[in-house]
Amino acid sequence: MSESPVVWESRDFVLKVNEAEIPWLILYHKSQYREMSQLPEGTRLEIYTIIDSIEREMLEYYKADKINIASFGNYLPRVHWHIMARFVNDSYFPEPLWGKRQREASLNLPDIGVFLERVKARIETLSLQSESLS
Amino acid sequence: MSESPVVWESRDFVLKVNEAEIPWLILYHKSQYREMSQLPEGTRLEIYTIIDSIEREMLEYYKADKINIASFGNYLPRVHWHIMARFVNDSYFPEPLWGKRQREASLNLPDIGVFLERVKARIETLSLQSESLS
Repeated sequence: MSESPVVWESRDFVLKVNEAEIPWLILYHKSQYREMSQLPEGTRLEIYTIIDSIEREMLEYYKADKINIASFGNYLPRVHWHIMARFVNDSYFPEPLWGKRQREASLNLPDIGVFLERVKARIETLSLQSESLS
Repeated sequence: MSESPVVWESRDFVLKVNEAEIPWLILYHKSQYREMSQLPEGTRLEIYTIIDSIEREMLEYYKADKINIASFGNYLPRVHWHIMARFVNDSYFPEPLWGKRQREASLNLPDIGVFLERVKARIETLSLQSESLS
């Protein structure tokens, strides 16, 4: 779990920003579970609901060309998910962010601060079992 | 949708093998939807349930060291998911399959035919809205 800025936190989850050229959030489950299938079903559903909220806000706020979602955890074997807004003119498109850089892009995206506030507000409307930490 | 072997198919989904060094399945939704959030909630849940079944079988059958799950769709902007069984001695570990190759691996994995039969059997026990095509 890197020292990146925290967007939102609850008893079970922490959502952080991976500071990059594109809007890139990482949702960590706070447990030591390595794999999704080791989590209780309700927790898995909460993860997917949170990812869905982030995706919707990325599409709405940034008009992203594509959403990329990934769970690897090879370096850090704990359940966490990457959610990325992609643009056809970003530095890696159409490669994944882990692929080969395609160009030196200069995106002119709207303010990320507003986006993060909107993501947090969206997640706080969800009925999650664990409460938000303020 | 590549011409890879079909593992299982229903009205809404097709599950294919991406022939690679590691066990790598791709679950395609047959619609033209680009993003998960455009699908009905029930369909999203079915996708996650199918991915969960595949993950469990990868862990059980292959004793995979880590499961990797990803949805990009930058080249093919239609909802599809990659589910990969990773091993600490595979050619890319701990990098994602889209990252930098780490070594020339020689994995000695159990028969994939048996694995695919087991995955198919597992999925057929799920209560999915769309029926399997035989």
